[in-house]
Amino acid sequence: MDSATKALASLSIQPTTIEHGAAETPEAWRDALKATASSPETFELVKMLVYKPKTAKTATPVPAIVIARESTETQTASIGKKFGLKDLRLANDELMREFLSVDRTSVSPLALNSTTYSKVFNVVDASLESAPGPFAIRALSSTSTLLLSGKELLTYLKSLETAEQKLNVVDFAEINSGPPTVATTGAAKAKEDAKIEGAVQIAIGVKKEVDFAAWYTNVLLKADMLDYYSVSGCYILKPWSYSIWEEIQEWFNKEIKKLGVQNSYFPMFVSQKVLEREKDHVEGFSPEVAWVTRAGQSDLEEPIAIRPTSETAMYPYYSKWIQSHRDLPLKLNQWNSVVRWEFKNPQPFLRTREFLWQEGHTAFLTKAEADAEVREILELYRQVYEDLLAVPVIPGIKSEKEKFAGGLYTTTLEGFIPTSGRGIQAATSHCLGQNFSRPEMFNISVEDPSKPNEKLYVWQNSWGLSTRTIGVMTMVHGDNQGLVLPPRVASIQAVIVPCGIKAGASDEERKSINDKCEEIAKTLRAANVRAKADLRDIYTPGYKFNDWEQKGVPLRLEIGPKDLEKKSTLTVRRDTGAKAPLPLENIAEGVSSLLETIQKEMFTRARDTYFERIKEVSKWEDVVPTLDAKCVAVIPWCEVEACEDDIKERSARASAPTDERAPSAGAKSLAIPFDQSRWTPIEPGKTKCPACGQDAKRWTMFGRSY
Amino acid sequence: MDSATKALASLSIQPTTIEHGAAETPEAWRDALKATASSPETFELVKMLVYKPKTAKTATPVPAIVIARESTETQTASIGKKFGLKDLRLANDELMREFLSVDRTSVSPLALNSTTYSKVFNVVDASLESAPGPFAIRALSSTSTLLLSGKELLTYLKSLETAEQKLNVVDFAEINSGPPTVATTGAAKAKEDAKIEGAVQIAIGVKKEVDFAAWYTNVLLKADMLDYYSVSGCYILKPWSYSIWEEIQEWFNKEIKKLGVQNSYFPMFVSQKVLEREKDHVEGFSPEVAWVTRAGQSDLEEPIAIRPTSETAMYPYYSKWIQSHRDLPLKLNQWNSVVRWEFKNPQPFLRTREFLWQEGHTAFLTKAEADAEVREILELYRQVYEDLLAVPVIPGIKSEKEKFAGGLYTTTLEGFIPTSGRGIQAATSHCLGQNFSRPEMFNISVEDPSKPNEKLYVWQNSWGLSTRTIGVMTMVHGDNQGLVLPPRVASIQAVIVPCGIKAGASDEERKSINDKCEEIAKTLRAANVRAKADLRDIYTPGYKFNDWEQKGVPLRLEIGPKDLEKKSTLTVRRDTGAKAPLPLENIAEGVSSLLETIQKEMFTRARDTYFERIKEVSKWEDVVPTLDAKCVAVIPWCEVEACEDDIKERSARASAPTDERAPSAGAKSLAIPFDQSRWTPIEPGKTKCPACGQDAKRWTMFGRSY
Repeated sequence: MDSATKALASLSIQPTTIEHGAAETPEAWRDALKATASSPETFELVKMLVYKPKTAKTATPVPAIVIARESTETQTASIGKKFGLKDLRLANDELMREFLSVDRTSVSPLALNSTTYSKVFNVVDASLESAPGPFAIRALSSTSTLLLSGKELLTYLKSLETAEQKLNVVDFAEINSGPPTVATTGAAKAKEDAKIEGAVQIAIGVKKEVDFAAWYTNVLLKADMLDYYSVSGCYILKPWSYSIWEEIQEWFNKEIKKLGVQNSYFPMFVSQKVLEREKDHVEGFSPEVAWVTRAGQSDLEEPIAIRPTSETAMYPYYSKWIQSHRDLPLKLNQWNSVVRWEFKNPQPFLRTREFLWQEGHTAFLTKAEADAEVREILELYRQVYEDLLAVPVIPGIKSEKEKFAGGLYTTTLEGFIPTSGRGIQAATSHCLGQNFSRPEMFNISVEDPSKPNEKLYVWQNSWGLSTRTIGVMTMVHGDNQGLVLPPRVASIQAVIVPCGIKAGASDEERKSINDKCEEIAKTLRAANVRAKADLRDIYTPGYKFNDWEQKGVPLRLEIGPKDLEKKSTLTVRRDTGAKAPLPLENIAEGVSSLLETIQKEMFTRARDTYFERIKEVSKWEDVVPTLDAKCVAVIPWCEVEACEDDIKERSARASAPTDERAPSAGAKSLAIPFDQSRWTPIEPGKTKCPACGQDAKRWTMFGRSY
Repeated sequence: MDSATKALASLSIQPTTIEHGAAETPEAWRDALKATASSPETFELVKMLVYKPKTAKTATPVPAIVIARESTETQTASIGKKFGLKDLRLANDELMREFLSVDRTSVSPLALNSTTYSKVFNVVDASLESAPGPFAIRALSSTSTLLLSGKELLTYLKSLETAEQKLNVVDFAEINSGPPTVATTGAAKAKEDAKIEGAVQIAIGVKKEVDFAAWYTNVLLKADMLDYYSVSGCYILKPWSYSIWEEIQEWFNKEIKKLGVQNSYFPMFVSQKVLEREKDHVEGFSPEVAWVTRAGQSDLEEPIAIRPTSETAMYPYYSKWIQSHRDLPLKLNQWNSVVRWEFKNPQPFLRTREFLWQEGHTAFLTKAEADAEVREILELYRQVYEDLLAVPVIPGIKSEKEKFAGGLYTTTLEGFIPTSGRGIQAATSHCLGQNFSRPEMFNISVEDPSKPNEKLYVWQNSWGLSTRTIGVMTMVHGDNQGLVLPPRVASIQAVIVPCGIKAGASDEERKSINDKCEEIAKTLRAANVRAKADLRDIYTPGYKFNDWEQKGVPLRLEIGPKDLEKKSTLTVRRDTGAKAPLPLENIAEGVSSLLETIQKEMFTRARDTYFERIKEVSKWEDVVPTLDAKCVAVIPWCEVEACEDDIKERSARASAPTDERAPSAGAKSLAIPFDQSRWTPIEPGKTKCPACGQDAKRWTMFGRSY
């Protein structure tokens, strides 16, 4: 901040500088400031938002920077309206680096300087002028903070003005006013914020309940799970998230191998002819298929698709390999990536243009075998979610409208994101029936062993689980401190932090504590607990606490001189924050048992929340209020496709107005749960579908969804 | 073969039919026939070759079918010349299915019938007429064989003639004659055959020493390692080969994690701008880059590349993530597939358009650390080849001409394929130096911890190992019975086959033998031997022996009533064919120790062969004869790039004439081995480079290569 200090000095502004430890979230920063002797009783934070307006594709986007008091309500829509900026979205890191030469973690109002000022459009909060202050201003990555009055900050910003470009100082109270739009109510405000998808909010934390989408992105970035990538809709899976995928792979591989499934690898390319063989199937996928048309400098004779899924790539070979009933069952799986070039807003893990998954493709002699496997696999998926990720799911069957394109029926695990009140398809296991094996499709047949000379077309399944798992886990468990990892998938399950070492401690004292931490870590690792001692000497214990909390490590052990005296450690649970001493004797058993408790309780809590939000609804007029209350409506449904269309349309119309970019407000059928026993028994011929009045068949979950 | 029998009957031909067990190779078939009581003393086989001529891209190719006595020399070039068919290649399965409605395993001269005859061009061996015969004719997948005289076969084929299309009966002795071309000598004949790359030869086995390329393809297909795919240059990795890759992954993952490397996943797409940032690097790859230009129905604004390797995709993020020396070292790895759209002849595992690999990308503060890691990784790769795959390799450094595009230096493991006498690059570990971290490239820098305020550009490495491993292993160890798997990577290490059960044996007797086999398999599995009892009741022991030999299972245990009496089993080694009894007591120890012996001896034999073929050459005139003797020439080299170009050019010119489609005959530098001690010490200033006469620096391996 040297050049900034210089610039301030030239304006005769001499801010107080406070040195403190590193702190990567606003909360931690606030704590660090408060813990410093030289910090004032009260201070305010400044928020700085960087927006990217919609521009013509050929034009260079000019970011709009908003600098405001933390407490000022800055409505995106109002800003856009006031300055004629179309379709404002919070900007990504790339844009920030390009225009401000800083990234998200080092942006502050002082990033506006004589070089960057002219490159951006600015909006400054008028109430800074008279605000009590002082304002704490710093780069997030730095360990010093400047205290400025609001007036001083304005003076600094005004010093950047040029003849061509003045400061746009606005009274937000004024531009926010006008006709009482939905944006002025609390609930609508939340929606207003929630619509900013895939956004990065800067220099200030975002609360999960207030701006869920920004919260989600922030958690992923700050927990080091993921980074944005230069190709839109694609993301980098960093080791912290990839290791979760590795845990899932290892477990699932072991289980499917027990079922006789073998791993293999089919090419990522599919010829156009092969891709388009199954009509319903290709209709389901073709709008999203990415095509390779050129190699080096040569145009290909025919465009080649990148697989959106591998049914059509694999089944010509199934036809060749399966010649006799003795070649059945054939059970292959592959771990690969597939590409679906979505044009909707991408969202990390949930909707990405390339994603990692496994896809199993099996063929059987009989429908009974295929049916049984569909459910066996669904049960394995349930275990991945519930036992590994501590995420509750409800197994069921999809409606005809929602089933896999070209298949016979689709079974599903339906998850739920309480914060948004939306359902999410967690994993699917499809029975394809004989649709792909028929002679006019891939012609996969054998001689029927029970009827000589008669052809039997094989029964097929396909089933897939993707890295979406990681996104759902993050959304369900994360909190305002960051990620919360279930122990079974955490690559570090317990972190041991040396604490309570006085400033004047001798090197030996430090070393003895550090050695003890390392020794405990070794003991735990020997007992198969993934443990790490954090002995970094440049960070304070507080910084480390925060760091590992953000990253979601399930358990922290604090070791200080007093703990050693008492032969004890202080354990701190990430999920509940509960602190409790634990004797060092038999530490491995104690920690293992605590981790199991955490795993179990994380699941139980999440399951209770999910179940509370599933509401039995028997009257149409209760459907939309149920959805608006962020719940899932389970209704006795007729299972008629036209009725489903109608429900979607009517529920969208009846919903409270929402932003046009938000995911659809209409409810669709999520699943027909296998377990129908939790709701009032349906009386055939008597219980009616609340949407159309026809006879109800089964209780069906309807909800808004991802 | 019902319709064929009918057709023959209508010609008053009533062939002898011999029923026998299934036999999937010509050798096994011959054995099965001989074992049948009703088979004649002597018989001949018929070979049937299906060629695809070069045709205009828009034209439908008309296959050329050659039907000849097994003993007749059928020169591809002569056939082409005689009938004006351009650039004949053996056809793939797809074509066969399309035109003959059969695949490779069920083709026979009787696949030519009234429907298929007109779709193909035929060439028939005139010597069939007067051949002693009888000829055994069958579909490979069938268990019955017809015996026909040569005359009867010709009668059948002539019955298919139409006014438009006659039979082309030729005397191969005559069309093969003419000017004494290279094709008439034994060695040149081998070359003539060897040029048929990626080909499928039908209805007759191929010997490794005679037609290596066809042998290689056959082994891969018959061992169920791989299948051809509808997109050219792409192959399906079936479980039998993919499981080898999984073994390698598991071992290598464990080792790199010990070094602190973490797994991650970067997107497969790279924007054009990013891809083209490093000039030398992009020049090395751009001719082979596949471009996505369309998604669904929309053209993309800018074409997006599929990664040929990920340096340029990853390093912009390294620049962002590495801000301080405390962020170093950064060590990431990913297991993924990359695409290099080669226009040369593809070859399974060795040169494919998409292939699986791991790529590690690391960044360090100092060159010393980077140098050390380059060698650590190379050592791990050596262990993968030598300890897991039993394939000998020579570690060394690449010449400037052969190093990785854009890197500082490349270390390599050089493998060797004795059958072709060609070197093969087995794995590479590159030091990129600061070439990618420089400010004008990706600008990856930190403040130098030893020189405050000075920037330090990081030192980087990248290293990769691909599924090429599996191809090299196949080529080195396979024999004329098929694949030979080293025990450490075999998904089945020992197969237990019940034997010696008499035709009249009771069900109890059968069951007791089968139970014993299963019990032994369980005992072995409990001792971590991957064992399987082959209890399929439809196959004879002989069929099973052949089946598992083809698939390369390292050890077979035969269990019959007599073995049980003696409390013993007969072990048969796949690598040597050696048979020895082994007591059932402590069977697990005995088998484990035998597997270790096999692993060790497979490596030792392969290493001895490799080392024998490395010839110290100090005179230029010995270079080409050394190459022609299928050896590698190690010469005291000057290390001047122009000299390397010259060696390549001169050695190609001096070589015996070879087919234009064969891999280049010119020698290139393979590696400068780290261990120079095996050759006469180079005297500085005195030892001269045999190619150019300048001062020699180090002994360098030159050879033909893949």
